Amino acid sequence: MTINYPNGSKINQYTNPKTKKETPAKRKAETTQFDNRGMNFEEDINQSNLYYLNHDLAVICKKPTPIQIVKVDYPRRSAAVIREAYFRQASTTDYNGVYDGYYLDFEAKETKNKTSFPLKNFHPHQIQHMEKCARQNGICFVLLWFSTIQRCFLLEFSILNQYWRAQSSSGKKSIPLKSIEEKAYEVELGVAPRVPYIDYVKKIIKNRKEKTS
Amino acid sequence: MTINYPNGSKINQYTNPKTKKETPAKRKAETTQFDNRGMNFEEDINQSNLYYLNHDLAVICKKPTPIQIVKVDYPRRSAAVIREAYFRQASTTDYNGVYDGYYLDFEAKETKNKTSFPLKNFHPHQIQHMEKCARQNGICFVLLWFSTIQRCFLLEFSILNQYWRAQSSSGKKSIPLKSIEEKAYEVELGVAPRVPYIDYVKKIIKNRKEKTS
Repeated sequence: MTINYPNGSKINQYTNPKTKKETPAKRKAETTQFDNRGMNFEEDINQSNLYYLNHDLAVICKKPTPIQIVKVDYPRRSAAVIREAYFRQASTTDYNGVYDGYYLDFEAKETKNKTSFPLKNFHPHQIQHMEKCARQNGICFVLLWFSTIQRCFLLEFSILNQYWRAQSSSGKKSIPLKSIEEKAYEVELGVAPRVPYIDYVKKIIKNRKEKTS
Repeated sequence: MTINYPNGSKINQYTNPKTKKETPAKRKAETTQFDNRGMNFEEDINQSNLYYLNHDLAVICKKPTPIQIVKVDYPRRSAAVIREAYFRQASTTDYNGVYDGYYLDFEAKETKNKTSFPLKNFHPHQIQHMEKCARQNGICFVLLWFSTIQRCFLLEFSILNQYWRAQSSSGKKSIPLKSIEEKAYEVELGVAPRVPYIDYVKKIIKNRKEKTS
């Protein structure tokens, strides 16, 4: 959903493509005038999770970045200080949690592309993790954000995996927007929560129930 | 389960109470003779999770410790080095994941006490998080390890919460072992997996189904 100002101009909720050549400072000034909206996609998902948590609608957390700690100082009378550490590759997806007893597991990714979503955005370990969770009947998906055309989709992992696996034979390194339009749920962005993905999770659950009944 | 050696002596799987006054080096030597078993309770749970993952029985992950990063160096031609960071209080439990579509969420704790489990082992934010997850019908519990008497229990969160909430009125700062014996599942420790807690999760699910049918 794009929100129109009274003068008819659209508010860019994430990255405004028109401002991409401007300095970060200018961009910051531009986004803050929209009442602190439009920070970035990940931040909006985190805000949505907070909304879901505070309204007892779901408990979804972003996992902390795994870090390899090498050296820690323990100064007297103050907290331990990590003096040498390295970022480690995460072995799972970024988000998981529970909605109505169901296990949810997902990753959020964005692209500036206008016509397709590049598969290089996904790491093999993320695919493997979702594959494992899907085998345990978890609800696995990706939230895709096309920042230039400002459209958001929820794509179930089973469909993403088809494209992922076909890469070597088909040579296709991205999923066409046309296919995403057909096979994914388009997420209508809102205000509270900003990315109401649980609405579409409900549809997935409904479809599952219909299949098994 | 305690495993007996041919001479009838018991293998201590975690901390051997008899060695507690010895140096860490001695203790290490003692534990490594048991074929690297007996490292600690958390390690054994992690090993069990790996077993479940590799056998496609469940996907349960330990969340990384959240860290507040203050300063990062980017030396040329090498990985980013974190030069100043601090440990942050986790806002959730340590473990979560999926078993057969069900969301699991738990915390593992140990005590040297022989007759009761002190409630101070739990932090308010862990209780709050499990409360939230339980309201979403997640399967929430704690794995309790009595290291001195070498017994492991799976206690459902709903029961833990009763004792937690009663603290202020009853003044009781711990759960008596007798109550735990009555109300929790005693986990028979094994070899692969070492802490087969999913066996008891299956019982919880069975009980749930019977209640709702």
